[in-house]
Amino acid sequence: MSSKRHFGDAFVEECGLIGIWNHKEAANLAYLGLYAQQHRGQEGAGIASLEKDCKNIYVHKGLGHVADVFKRFDFSNLPGEAAMGHVRYPTAGDNKLAEVQPFMAEIAGGRVALAQNGNLINAEELRRDLISDGAIFSATSDTESILHLVARQARDKSFVDAVIGACQQIKGAYSIVALFPDRLIALRDPNGFRPLALGELNGSLVVASETCAFDLIGAKYIRDVEPGEVLEIYGEKQMRSHFPFPKVKPTPCIFEYVYFARPDSNVFAKNVYRIRKQMGRELAKEAPIHADYVVPVPDSGVTAALGYAEESGIPMELGLIRNHYVGRTFIEPKQSIRDFGVKIKHNANRDLLEGKRIVVVDDSIVRGTTTKKLIKMLRDAGASEVHVRITAPPTVGSCYYGIDTPTEDQLIAANMSVGEITKYINADSLAYISLEGLYRSVNSEPGSYCDACFTRTYPIGKPNNGKPSCS
Amino acid sequence: MSSKRHFGDAFVEECGLIGIWNHKEAANLAYLGLYAQQHRGQEGAGIASLEKDCKNIYVHKGLGHVADVFKRFDFSNLPGEAAMGHVRYPTAGDNKLAEVQPFMAEIAGGRVALAQNGNLINAEELRRDLISDGAIFSATSDTESILHLVARQARDKSFVDAVIGACQQIKGAYSIVALFPDRLIALRDPNGFRPLALGELNGSLVVASETCAFDLIGAKYIRDVEPGEVLEIYGEKQMRSHFPFPKVKPTPCIFEYVYFARPDSNVFAKNVYRIRKQMGRELAKEAPIHADYVVPVPDSGVTAALGYAEESGIPMELGLIRNHYVGRTFIEPKQSIRDFGVKIKHNANRDLLEGKRIVVVDDSIVRGTTTKKLIKMLRDAGASEVHVRITAPPTVGSCYYGIDTPTEDQLIAANMSVGEITKYINADSLAYISLEGLYRSVNSEPGSYCDACFTRTYPIGKPNNGKPSCS
Amino acid sequence: MSSKRHFGDAFVEECGLIGIWNHKEAANLAYLGLYAQQHRGQEGAGIASLEKDCKNIYVHKGLGHVADVFKRFDFSNLPGEAAMGHVRYPTAGDNKLAEVQPFMAEIAGGRVALAQNGNLINAEELRRDLISDGAIFSATSDTESILHLVARQARDKSFVDAVIGACQQIKGAYSIVALFPDRLIALRDPNGFRPLALGELNGSLVVASETCAFDLIGAKYIRDVEPGEVLEIYGEKQMRSHFPFPKVKPTPCIFEYVYFARPDSNVFAKNVYRIRKQMGRELAKEAPIHADYVVPVPDSGVTAALGYAEESGIPMELGLIRNHYVGRTFIEPKQSIRDFGVKIKHNANRDLLEGKRIVVVDDSIVRGTTTKKLIKMLRDAGASEVHVRITAPPTVGSCYYGIDTPTEDQLIAANMSVGEITKYINADSLAYISLEGLYRSVNSEPGSYCDACFTRTYPIGKPNNGKPSCS
Amino acid sequence: MSSKRHFGDAFVEECGLIGIWNHKEAANLAYLGLYAQQHRGQEGAGIASLEKDCKNIYVHKGLGHVADVFKRFDFSNLPGEAAMGHVRYPTAGDNKLAEVQPFMAEIAGGRVALAQNGNLINAEELRRDLISDGAIFSATSDTESILHLVARQARDKSFVDAVIGACQQIKGAYSIVALFPDRLIALRDPNGFRPLALGELNGSLVVASETCAFDLIGAKYIRDVEPGEVLEIYGEKQMRSHFPFPKVKPTPCIFEYVYFARPDSNVFAKNVYRIRKQMGRELAKEAPIHADYVVPVPDSGVTAALGYAEESGIPMELGLIRNHYVGRTFIEPKQSIRDFGVKIKHNANRDLLEGKRIVVVDDSIVRGTTTKKLIKMLRDAGASEVHVRITAPPTVGSCYYGIDTPTEDQLIAANMSVGEITKYINADSLAYISLEGLYRSVNSEPGSYCDACFTRTYPIGKPNNGKPSCS
Repeated sequence: MSSKRHFGDAFVEECGLIGIWNHKEAANLAYLGLYAQQHRGQEGAGIASLEKDCKNIYVHKGLGHVADVFKRFDFSNLPGEAAMGHVRYPTAGDNKLAEVQPFMAEIAGGRVALAQNGNLINAEELRRDLISDGAIFSATSDTESILHLVARQARDKSFVDAVIGACQQIKGAYSIVALFPDRLIALRDPNGFRPLALGELNGSLVVASETCAFDLIGAKYIRDVEPGEVLEIYGEKQMRSHFPFPKVKPTPCIFEYVYFARPDSNVFAKNVYRIRKQMGRELAKEAPIHADYVVPVPDSGVTAALGYAEESGIPMELGLIRNHYVGRTFIEPKQSIRDFGVKIKHNANRDLLEGKRIVVVDDSIVRGTTTKKLIKMLRDAGASEVHVRITAPPTVGSCYYGIDTPTEDQLIAANMSVGEITKYINADSLAYISLEGLYRSVNSEPGSYCDACFTRTYPIGKPNNGKPSCS
Repeated sequence: MSSKRHFGDAFVEECGLIGIWNHKEAANLAYLGLYAQQHRGQEGAGIASLEKDCKNIYVHKGLGHVADVFKRFDFSNLPGEAAMGHVRYPTAGDNKLAEVQPFMAEIAGGRVALAQNGNLINAEELRRDLISDGAIFSATSDTESILHLVARQARDKSFVDAVIGACQQIKGAYSIVALFPDRLIALRDPNGFRPLALGELNGSLVVASETCAFDLIGAKYIRDVEPGEVLEIYGEKQMRSHFPFPKVKPTPCIFEYVYFARPDSNVFAKNVYRIRKQMGRELAKEAPIHADYVVPVPDSGVTAALGYAEESGIPMELGLIRNHYVGRTFIEPKQSIRDFGVKIKHNANRDLLEGKRIVVVDDSIVRGTTTKKLIKMLRDAGASEVHVRITAPPTVGSCYYGIDTPTEDQLIAANMSVGEITKYINADSLAYISLEGLYRSVNSEPGSYCDACFTRTYPIGKPNNGKPSCS
Repeated sequence: MSSKRHFGDAFVEECGLIGIWNHKEAANLAYLGLYAQQHRGQEGAGIASLEKDCKNIYVHKGLGHVADVFKRFDFSNLPGEAAMGHVRYPTAGDNKLAEVQPFMAEIAGGRVALAQNGNLINAEELRRDLISDGAIFSATSDTESILHLVARQARDKSFVDAVIGACQQIKGAYSIVALFPDRLIALRDPNGFRPLALGELNGSLVVASETCAFDLIGAKYIRDVEPGEVLEIYGEKQMRSHFPFPKVKPTPCIFEYVYFARPDSNVFAKNVYRIRKQMGRELAKEAPIHADYVVPVPDSGVTAALGYAEESGIPMELGLIRNHYVGRTFIEPKQSIRDFGVKIKHNANRDLLEGKRIVVVDDSIVRGTTTKKLIKMLRDAGASEVHVRITAPPTVGSCYYGIDTPTEDQLIAANMSVGEITKYINADSLAYISLEGLYRSVNSEPGSYCDACFTRTYPIGKPNNGKPSCS
Repeated sequence: MSSKRHFGDAFVEECGLIGIWNHKEAANLAYLGLYAQQHRGQEGAGIASLEKDCKNIYVHKGLGHVADVFKRFDFSNLPGEAAMGHVRYPTAGDNKLAEVQPFMAEIAGGRVALAQNGNLINAEELRRDLISDGAIFSATSDTESILHLVARQARDKSFVDAVIGACQQIKGAYSIVALFPDRLIALRDPNGFRPLALGELNGSLVVASETCAFDLIGAKYIRDVEPGEVLEIYGEKQMRSHFPFPKVKPTPCIFEYVYFARPDSNVFAKNVYRIRKQMGRELAKEAPIHADYVVPVPDSGVTAALGYAEESGIPMELGLIRNHYVGRTFIEPKQSIRDFGVKIKHNANRDLLEGKRIVVVDDSIVRGTTTKKLIKMLRDAGASEVHVRITAPPTVGSCYYGIDTPTEDQLIAANMSVGEITKYINADSLAYISLEGLYRSVNSEPGSYCDACFTRTYPIGKPNNGKPSCS
């Protein structure tokens, strides 16, 4: 019941990747591919392009939404037949622009542009070692460490071997797209935490985090880049697959289904919408309630609410309306308006709620403060009962694999029982889907995804410094 | 089935008004009131404030969204205890900034700021007469004429009498909010075409086009400003009502319910969401069909689709997903992507649609081109049958009362039969709600609203030049 | 010895005008003409153009320098074969953009764009009367009143007669350029306070405040527009002269020579550089002194210093160096730097000044504070004696005719004797040129110019409110 | 006779440095120090600051003038008691922002910010070696190589030893200012090509390229950083001097006197104004001519012209007036104005020149095109004879030590005799100062400066790739 994509009480976005090989308008397509994936990162965006003839790589990046970064941009400044891009989430660094990916550098063999979606758990050690060895760091992003490793490997190796050699030194969750003077390399870490799909567009090869990017540019989904696969794309449209890592059981991130991905995307080869709706159904079975209306927290809760409504037979009504013009900066009156932060984004549909018992469906409760305010808003609007149903199990663990979460002490479910939370947020009842219910919704065996945020079972451990991703 | 708020095949936004009297942070509240009404006009925004002591009026306005116009704005530049604001739709004028309201001027008695939502049908004559009489015009907006009339009346009348005198010379649809050195005047034309509601916030009086503005600032709805009422607000929170016009049968705009207003608003004292949902129900009764899914065109079609689904028993599924990050300028590849214009905003949820019979619910078809493209997108995504259901009767008449519509020759329903349109947009079936069904949804007698866009019955006639609003 | 063009202790700029008739790139030439006259007004700039075929007038204006206002401007948005422009000085108004000229309006007969250089002394009465008569004012500039008068006259007169009729109602100093659907009108008030020159460029006619504008665009000076002349330009390159005002003795502004105009301009048909240098010579004769160096206050004092040096035989040295990158906003350390305001613009050439007796030559002392600081800077840099020579008589009167001056109570020479000023600014000696010397420099009879700022003899009186120009 | 600081036919700016140690408003002072040195580089500016307590270094930089880069900048974002800054000249790189200094990086021991004025002649080899060794380069500037070398040295050395170790590997002209977590290091290369002065401000230590920076912030000049000196500043105001390089004969850049430095600066411990004026005197002795006026090309030629005039007895007149509002981008009419490029910046004072024989004094002729245009402008304005006197010997060699010069094939004096140049530029006579005369003006022995641009004697050779600085 959070208002995630813009406010504090929230998971925030991770990142989105795009790569285009062999298309006359590569950079322009990369732009559209990022555009379709804007929800994966709104703090900055960048695109690099490769002119194969002169082996030159160009880059343009900036802070803000894709449409802002490339407003009035002349794409002839990103010439060439291959391109890649990245959208990223907010950073706490003091020089934000320096953190925007892709990172471009000249290394042995030529220029390279590299972008990553994920989070390394040995980032600190890598950085320390590299610095001890004389490397210079101009940003705080993990990606710069990866670039340094690639550069060092590239001293006496081919580009693909350099990338493989670099990845053999890193631990964590990472999908990477990198552009070299003669090839594009796309890869996922051995566990395949973060998504990366492969598509085709009239003889051009395309990779993207989510398939909604393919839809916009008219590309067709071929298959996912596999966990542990290093995919080399070169020549006209040649591909070579490498599996250089010891094989491990894949653990893709189940939270992509719960919240991150766009419902019209396929992620890890499954349709997000279907799964999300099924979560609503499972939840309705596990935690039924007598009520007048099912009310989703828009936009992310709508799909699951549809499922809940169908299964329960309780009609879904839009009891909360979202203002889609919400920007990021607001000038709030000093004499603060009650619950302003929540109201600027959601408004209770007062006329509808008067005297009604409602079931609010949302995907997660992080700190609990936003949920508390939404419930208050619904009660103020006249709701007689407010029951909360969450389509994920309680969020008890921070993510170290690429999802920006607060530390455990700020996760309400890590510090309170469900009963205590119910009281805190002032709900008439609160239920979370069970882990089993979640896996049933995904139609998979428990343990076949990374579910550490719900179980604290970290497939590859935590970083030594114990800091969650992106914090 | 149009993608109205951003693209061509569309009604575009009209305007939104806000007025605040007697609040220490009047301008800041006006800003929030405009923010909540952003959907009513995205081309420009302006706020004027009044410092009562020195009787000075200040103004700040600009092109773009409210949040952009007031980005980093220091509200101490809009001091005072009263304020008013306006958001407006696009204009064709060569100097767009000059058209942004409110218009401020020094007239006899002091400064005045005035903004209007609507359209005059005797604008051309008024302008011609005023110019012949030596008036100077720096913009093309009707509102400048109204200001001139007020200024001439104010030579020997009180402010409220000047406003009344001016309104007695104008014909058309107009809700007006005007700020004077010692009062705020809010009024609706005798027919009450455009909405204007009165609210209260801890002793401050507030007027707004839609009640969603009240919700955001925490104000309570009192009542509507009545058709033909000139409401004078002054002193602490004193009000005086004038009804200076010959009484006529009110004809508020029924299209506010069909499309314009936010579903969480009350407009003309009725809840938009309820009515819109009822339209879906009525439509399901009038035009049932066998299908697998009801699919709304988001966002405007969702509420009606819920009604259609409930009534028909066909489950609603989100078969079209909207990208909410759509800005207004896109850099499209030269080698144009098929149906790019539609895809940048909506994506078909391919996985869901494969082999399904769907009923698409939308609120209107204007030119037909967008609907045609959406249907193609749905079919390309695998839909086996596409039935279209429109929650308004065929749009056969242009609006001359404040809704920006194309001329009749561009309105598909004014030029083709329903059968021809079905063929043109390539639907398996197409049905519009009947006029009676529409009035049943609104729970009113036929003729109690202006429905000229569906009937060509114009309550107060057309302008002599025959040009629709805003074109 | 002031640092006029950027800081407080200063006369500030008045305005500059340009008009182009019958040239395919009229607006672009107008832009360059304003550019050459940038020194006459740095707060805002605007250009209007006329497309003769469709009789449409376009305008673009903004705050800041010409180069900023038209940065990346696409001149195809100012189409047509005639254009006019204006640069203006700062205003205190609360809506500065509204004050930028030219003012454009639709009036009887079509659109008009009008700009003025000067100041009316009956502005307040005109405005009051116009407002009483129902006119609306959106700015505070005199120019809006002129436009209203023209509009009222144009109800039943030709454009030129309307302009003449309007001017017969105004009193003050004014040079005007106005663009109508079929002609350009350029005029000077009967006294000819402000300059306006006529030139030719390959069959195109051009008017400008200063001839340096002609030089840049390659136009040739023909003659001045005469005091009291209303020059109508129309057709290909036809001109018609009107002299509708009772003849009075012309009193052009002598201060244009002292400070305002660029030295490479001819103003009132005389070369500014020559006159300014002669002032230095006369001053050297009237107020000789033993010294090591003549030091100009750059840039305005350089020409006169050359004359002083030549006449006196004392070598001129650049003892004060000006930083030409001075912008308008500075972030000064809190722990304020001594004399920061002066130092940001001028630096003493320390090495040169050590132990030297210097004669500082400047054109005027307004409030005295800047001069005081400059002298301190020179002494700190080692000057053993600092003698100040001013190439104008003491500034004892405010200007009501277009030069922005403080009120008399702030003019040091209106409140102190030369001896007191000498003490206040801490000079070893101070001398002003005599009024006779000034007239000798201009090679004219005393009284043949307006010299009110030195004599308090106001050729056409003061405004009733007694407020100086532009304050 | 060139219009150097803005147009093509020109040497362009090199760079300017500032460093502040132990001042509560260090960054703000650095800003002012850069501001005073704006003439040394107008393409970009950056400042880094050090908070000693937390050993954190912050940086802000951008493209454009200092005042633009720091417009509305909140200096609380550059906290701390030490700061350094840099202004730079244009670069041809494809990502200009990436080239703006100072460069900041995290290296062994903490963060460092480093900026350089000069040019390395072994830059290509260094870069190649570093890349071969695994370094990544994100810009093309030499400075990044220096930073890499420092980082590698810092693995097992103190900061000052790391800097010394790095400098022992570089060859070229370089003055460097670097900020470390506990000290500021300022140094000049063994030959001392580029200037760097040391000053004091109430207990704070300051370094700057030119002393005009000291004047603005109120600092006092102490002495120059010596050629080959590495100056370590730490603690309160402690300094330690290192001379780690083999001693060579210093060869500071004589061109700083001819053109670069501000006349009010002391550079290499001598006053620029005095020297520049003496050049004019020497030139008058070496190349006398009968003429009516000495006319400087403003601004750079004015000082020398004063000297020429004094020595020759020919009066100096301002026959060319410079428009100081020149920005960098101009919208020129398509139907190009004759000699537009020259006229936008300089205007001939027509009234003065008619029928006169003039001696034009300028500091250098690079490509000859601007000079040719200026002479044409003077003749068009009526000059009967135009004699050109240049206060430097013919520019026959490109600079490889930090001054941006074209390649020799573009230097007119490297390709034509003086007679041929005279003809090409259409002068009545042309004379350059002799090398001996130049040294006399500087009051030094021939060979005690780098004069390679006049002699092709390169004190430390050329780079292997033979490319001049900055091209």
